[in-house]
Amino acid sequence: MSRIARRWYFNARPKATIKGDTLVLREEPLPALREGDILVRTLYLSLDATNRVWISDWDIYMEPVHVGEPMRGFVVGEVVESRNPAFAPGTLVAGLHTWSDYFVTDAQGFQSFARVAGLPLADTFGILTVAGPTAHYGLLSVGQPKPGDTVVVTAAAGAVGSLVGQLAKLKGCRAVGIAGSREKCRWLTDELGFDAAVNYRAEPVLEGLRRCCPNGIDVHFENVGGEALDTGLTLMNNFGRVVVCGLISTYNSTGTAAPGPYMFRNVIMRRLTVRGFVILDHLDEYPRMTAELAQWMLEGKLRYRLHIVDGLENAAEALNLLYTGGNEGKLMVRIGAER
Amino acid sequence: MSRIARRWYFNARPKATIKGDTLVLREEPLPALREGDILVRTLYLSLDATNRVWISDWDIYMEPVHVGEPMRGFVVGEVVESRNPAFAPGTLVAGLHTWSDYFVTDAQGFQSFARVAGLPLADTFGILTVAGPTAHYGLLSVGQPKPGDTVVVTAAAGAVGSLVGQLAKLKGCRAVGIAGSREKCRWLTDELGFDAAVNYRAEPVLEGLRRCCPNGIDVHFENVGGEALDTGLTLMNNFGRVVVCGLISTYNSTGTAAPGPYMFRNVIMRRLTVRGFVILDHLDEYPRMTAELAQWMLEGKLRYRLHIVDGLENAAEALNLLYTGGNEGKLMVRIGAER
Repeated sequence: MSRIARRWYFNARPKATIKGDTLVLREEPLPALREGDILVRTLYLSLDATNRVWISDWDIYMEPVHVGEPMRGFVVGEVVESRNPAFAPGTLVAGLHTWSDYFVTDAQGFQSFARVAGLPLADTFGILTVAGPTAHYGLLSVGQPKPGDTVVVTAAAGAVGSLVGQLAKLKGCRAVGIAGSREKCRWLTDELGFDAAVNYRAEPVLEGLRRCCPNGIDVHFENVGGEALDTGLTLMNNFGRVVVCGLISTYNSTGTAAPGPYMFRNVIMRRLTVRGFVILDHLDEYPRMTAELAQWMLEGKLRYRLHIVDGLENAAEALNLLYTGGNEGKLMVRIGAER
Repeated sequence: MSRIARRWYFNARPKATIKGDTLVLREEPLPALREGDILVRTLYLSLDATNRVWISDWDIYMEPVHVGEPMRGFVVGEVVESRNPAFAPGTLVAGLHTWSDYFVTDAQGFQSFARVAGLPLADTFGILTVAGPTAHYGLLSVGQPKPGDTVVVTAAAGAVGSLVGQLAKLKGCRAVGIAGSREKCRWLTDELGFDAAVNYRAEPVLEGLRRCCPNGIDVHFENVGGEALDTGLTLMNNFGRVVVCGLISTYNSTGTAAPGPYMFRNVIMRRLTVRGFVILDHLDEYPRMTAELAQWMLEGKLRYRLHIVDGLENAAEALNLLYTGGNEGKLMVRIGAER
């Protein structure tokens, strides 16, 4: 008798925000394992802003999720049955798969998930799978901050942004965050060590950034797009770097094209380098980056919050938190209990 | 008795295009030479798209020309009187100065102008002062094309654009130009060796570029901005480079901010590097670049047209040609006769 799994499907392309019929949860029998397959019980699903892009009608950086297909995400789980000698039952594996409580895979693209001594599984998975390497590569490899530089990061209280500011501090920079509430700003400055934070809901971003960046901006780390990016471009110093990690403010307008930054001319006037990146291109640098990040996490030099939503059935609703600023810290779904 | 010179002044900031009262020509007595000064008789004035930016109200890459000040430009002239031992009468000098037939300067920032054996003075000045180094640095140092790459350049029949395409060919690339008439396109393909050219007045740029770039775009060299840039971003290949040299389509709207490229999201989706530059930052590379360019000019590998307008009194009207696409080749004003 085959086991029944629950799995989210991409049901209808959203015009703007994700609605009740965008993703639907279905029950389905799992296939029998063939030679080389493993059956995985999912423990955590990572929710990332880019998930919205995967179900857009844009021409994106990877194969999109097509209507009718299972929804995709980064997961960590436990092998419960195996016909693959590389993955014994009980092994933790991580990779890009579906939003499911159980799934069968030929294990292509899956790796054993390495626990970090001293860190809970949720922390290791939540920070070291996407957010940490994204902040690390984006700030240090793309942004190339020098000690004394002013680094501005948008969505600063988000999973990536909060790490970017702390990495900037570790590299001797001035870290300034833009976030959407007084509480978030306070968390950035009082707990994470940001030098300053601008609450974009309380004052014009340009005004706030001018006050917090008296020497201009050397590295602007963009997660949002729109007004924040324009403001950054306005205040950039000559030869500054703009790291384009995300444009979350535009992801819910996937059918239409949003206007680019009005201060685009400053790319010339300030001789800027604007570079976009996708962390999946840099898997070869994961060992080095995750080792550094884990060490800083253990030493308490990188702090973070996990925002864990319980239950696969709540995954779709949870995803929307990313686009409303409703999450506090790294957003993930607990699908199965750790044993 | 002092000599009378004619000189253009920035009289009134234009709202959009340069009008009759934007720049005014005045007569004025030249000052007596002090120790270290030279009196220069101007031979040629270079007109460059960025001149419009210098009289904008933008925060630009250098000290702007303020209302009431003489208009600025790159000039070559002949020393007619000298109290500076470095510049004997008869010496040719070049530098950034005013739109004048005669001027007195302390020679700061001026250099002896080196004739190139085998090339007329107008050619050497017209191509090697701004356009040539701009094309060279922008394409080769910023754009970093590899053999086999597809290079697209906008304002391709302009002074910089026409050189960019030919440099691309010299480096083994496919060169595709965007220009505004059938004649210009024909000149690019039939005389300069571009592989293809799109007449943006005859068909949608996106359609034309799709046809001419079957393998996508690896390097997009932007002189114009607006729709052309959007189209380039749409067709960029992964890890492509966008060289932002000019945004001439926006220069006549200096009071208001033009929207940036709608396909800005492709900076992420295609992992692009978008870099702006100003050639004045790279004077240290002039000797190497101008030597290479002069050699290619002498060998007939770099072809060009000079669009020479006669008479200082016609300089202001001539400048507008750059913003209407009315010039054919490198635009310059002949102010004094060569002897």
